[in-house]
Amino acid sequence: MKNRSAIELYDTTLRDGTQGEKITLSVQDKLLITEKLDEFGVDYIEGGWPSSNPKDEEFFRRALHIQLKNAKLCAFGSTARKPDNIEKDPNLTGLLKSETPVITIFGKTWKAHSAVGLGLNDEENAELIFKSVNFLKNRGRQVLFDAEHFFDGYKDNPVFAMTMLQTAEEAGADRLVLCDTNGGTMPHEVYTIVQEVISATNIPIGIHTHNDSDLAVANALSALRAGAAHVQGTINGIGERCGNANLISIIPNVILKLNGHFHHKLNLNQLTSLSNSVYELLNLPPDNRAPFVGKSAFAHKGGIHVSAVLKESSLYEHIDPKTVGNRQRVLVSELAGQSNIRYKAKELGIELPDSGELFKKIVQRIKKLEYEGFQFDVAEASFELLLHHELGKFKPFFEVLESKVHIESAKNREPVDQAILKIEVNDEIEMTAADGDGPVNALDKALRKVLRGFYPAIRTIKLVDYKVRVLEEKKGTSAKVRVLIETSDGHSTWSTVGVSTNIIDASLQALSDSINYYLFNMQETTYAAPAEVQ
Amino acid sequence: MKNRSAIELYDTTLRDGTQGEKITLSVQDKLLITEKLDEFGVDYIEGGWPSSNPKDEEFFRRALHIQLKNAKLCAFGSTARKPDNIEKDPNLTGLLKSETPVITIFGKTWKAHSAVGLGLNDEENAELIFKSVNFLKNRGRQVLFDAEHFFDGYKDNPVFAMTMLQTAEEAGADRLVLCDTNGGTMPHEVYTIVQEVISATNIPIGIHTHNDSDLAVANALSALRAGAAHVQGTINGIGERCGNANLISIIPNVILKLNGHFHHKLNLNQLTSLSNSVYELLNLPPDNRAPFVGKSAFAHKGGIHVSAVLKESSLYEHIDPKTVGNRQRVLVSELAGQSNIRYKAKELGIELPDSGELFKKIVQRIKKLEYEGFQFDVAEASFELLLHHELGKFKPFFEVLESKVHIESAKNREPVDQAILKIEVNDEIEMTAADGDGPVNALDKALRKVLRGFYPAIRTIKLVDYKVRVLEEKKGTSAKVRVLIETSDGHSTWSTVGVSTNIIDASLQALSDSINYYLFNMQETTYAAPAEVQ
Repeated sequence: MKNRSAIELYDTTLRDGTQGEKITLSVQDKLLITEKLDEFGVDYIEGGWPSSNPKDEEFFRRALHIQLKNAKLCAFGSTARKPDNIEKDPNLTGLLKSETPVITIFGKTWKAHSAVGLGLNDEENAELIFKSVNFLKNRGRQVLFDAEHFFDGYKDNPVFAMTMLQTAEEAGADRLVLCDTNGGTMPHEVYTIVQEVISATNIPIGIHTHNDSDLAVANALSALRAGAAHVQGTINGIGERCGNANLISIIPNVILKLNGHFHHKLNLNQLTSLSNSVYELLNLPPDNRAPFVGKSAFAHKGGIHVSAVLKESSLYEHIDPKTVGNRQRVLVSELAGQSNIRYKAKELGIELPDSGELFKKIVQRIKKLEYEGFQFDVAEASFELLLHHELGKFKPFFEVLESKVHIESAKNREPVDQAILKIEVNDEIEMTAADGDGPVNALDKALRKVLRGFYPAIRTIKLVDYKVRVLEEKKGTSAKVRVLIETSDGHSTWSTVGVSTNIIDASLQALSDSINYYLFNMQETTYAAPAEVQ
Repeated sequence: MKNRSAIELYDTTLRDGTQGEKITLSVQDKLLITEKLDEFGVDYIEGGWPSSNPKDEEFFRRALHIQLKNAKLCAFGSTARKPDNIEKDPNLTGLLKSETPVITIFGKTWKAHSAVGLGLNDEENAELIFKSVNFLKNRGRQVLFDAEHFFDGYKDNPVFAMTMLQTAEEAGADRLVLCDTNGGTMPHEVYTIVQEVISATNIPIGIHTHNDSDLAVANALSALRAGAAHVQGTINGIGERCGNANLISIIPNVILKLNGHFHHKLNLNQLTSLSNSVYELLNLPPDNRAPFVGKSAFAHKGGIHVSAVLKESSLYEHIDPKTVGNRQRVLVSELAGQSNIRYKAKELGIELPDSGELFKKIVQRIKKLEYEGFQFDVAEASFELLLHHELGKFKPFFEVLESKVHIESAKNREPVDQAILKIEVNDEIEMTAADGDGPVNALDKALRKVLRGFYPAIRTIKLVDYKVRVLEEKKGTSAKVRVLIETSDGHSTWSTVGVSTNIIDASLQALSDSINYYLFNMQETTYAAPAEVQ
């Protein structure tokens, strides 16, 4: 990299990120993400657009009380609406009211936007930028100027685009951030244009890219290589349309591939956990295929790869997964040969027979279940139980002999969700019933009610995640469903799976596996805490 | 682009793509994808590794009967295992047996892999490559040499890497494909190395990249700009770990951004449909955020963007969505102002009041439902019904007064899934019951049984998709679920939504909306086919 000095890291997950489809964050979520970003070592946290909605105003009111170790809070907004009334412009005054040390304002640097969008001539647009930046600078703020549509604007009319940028610099802006707002620019164009801008300006240049051409990360890296000193993006690349540049990919690329470094020392081995916790707060499933942090990012499936990986990891992994807090996995799947199943068993500490009928039987059983829709790569506890069962080491602690669920709803009446179970446990047969909040919840309650009497330890475990996926969706309402359940005892978590045409049945399978797994591990370890399996 | 001649398009969805986690394709699926790729204009279709599994062997047996218009079928495999027994090598003979006109074999070009992985010295590795390529060439095949780990190998030991590549060329290879097998190379490195390879060889150079650094597309484009004439990738970027280079992004970038062209004229406006149909065959939900083809790729949410987009699309869209068969959308969402709801209503042909209490009430109602978990951007039929309802134009055709569902399962007995409904329709109250394949199916059957008598037209509609998503997953089994249903009458399809803590209830809401929507549109259009809404 040309730029050998520290790069500034600017996060806009809370503002540009929330423009993405299906993305919503409560004020509480935003505060939690702020703390996580600060801890990780981000320099700027753009919290929102205060005058655009009351949620963002509340966020800034509350965020100012957080003791930040690394980051500065930043409010986002536009230049004033008209050059002749700067002092009373509601957007600029709203930005000041948020009391953040840093303010980012965007202005037009593509002539078409200034002319068509705002109906301004060149001088008016320049005046708007100058006065807006100057007004905020005079009130003691660090001001970042976001040059909206800069690359499109520069390609269309470089004189106009550069004039607006230089105007912001003259007005006292601290950073000029070049935005590829529509995400249509190519990396080699970014490289050339950033170089030209750097040679014509005197303050640090930033880069803000979008992923509409699948090149947001490449474009950001291209700008940094050309000498940009400030990079903007979002965690997991969330954002409007195809998303913003993904900081989760940019950060390790800069550090591990381009030998660059950021302003603060980052906790790179927390990268995977940062990504996952933001997904969690967004209530979105993580992207398993995500570079660096995805569950599949270091998962090996092909037979050849697996045997080579076992010899020497670096032959098939571009970095050590631990560097970014991720881990190597070997997948148990249809395509997997016997060696994958062996590897997995070894990882779980289970000894399989060297060969022969029993081993063949186990492989066939796994393949048959996967064919039916079971998925063991995401339900390792079910897989472990299955192996122990086939090896004759595990016998279920209970058996559900019968299950009945009644669901009733009627206008103006409280809904009824009732489960009745007949369970065999320790050679006794017990019947039980429970009401619940939905049928699966009723089932869960009924099951635990009986089992608590026999195994008091299960009081400490609780469900932390519950997912339903419809398989063979083409078949409409008679399709099979796969239920994945995640359970925790406060120390470790484990995942189990159930498959059936009936969601109640599939849930009962996964619930049963979950409890059996816990009890089996307690027994194995003579009532010590169960082994970490996730 | 330097390379002004036509670029060859090589698809490996069926081979490298299926190495991805959770990716499985039946032989039938693979044959369907082959036809789609051929129709789209792909040059090479890599169908599988014949000697690695019987499914791939069957695929080639059956695929040879397809009349391909554009593409050549290609079988994939490795060089021989040992240089002294080429004629009887099971892998090479397996490749010949597949009878494809093209064969791709990979060989080692990173010294560490040759030495550690295979235990060969340099001369032995070169001999293996030479003899393997030559053997296949002498049997009349077009031979593509995949230089595995080429970029890592070249950076480590350029002499070794180039020697192996030149050996393949001397042996008669038709193409040298440079592979970034571990996905760790940076775009500027790819550019330089491809240039150096081109100046040292005399046959067309291909590029094969992986997405481990989030740069697979950028790396492929970088190689093409440096003069590569052949590009490999997969539809939707599926593949091992983080996936292969995504052809769905590479193709429009080459054509629309780099002014390049492919060997065959591609049906670019079929790009979105190609992407979706492959997701469908993979039984995976499409990636809404996917560049070019994702449902969100041209979806506008932010208030400012929306009002600007309405003025002039190109201001906020890097390409015209129609070029790639996609479309512009404006999202109805929490963040959306009243202008978004207006835009959406206009799109659906619904006139909303200019302002006043009624309009305010509608906006509030939508916000409240979205807060509860409804999602109208994926259920436009429910949204349309809601608007008509609020405007006083739609009255439900029926009402479910009571619903009961009984689910029973017991060892060695057939499971019971029974629904009992009390429905008011045309001022009559009817009770009905039905058994089904799962509780939701039973409910669907019961509902239709009654309604068929009143509205015979509903016989023609059927469910085509059914999806369940658990909201607030943290709450375990008492979480809310959102059910999305897609229904078709053979001409058009429409989507509806239901939300409840109870999956049965949520399903009933979505089912009711679906039937009401159909009947309402029939009535509106005096029993003509309902309008296309998806």
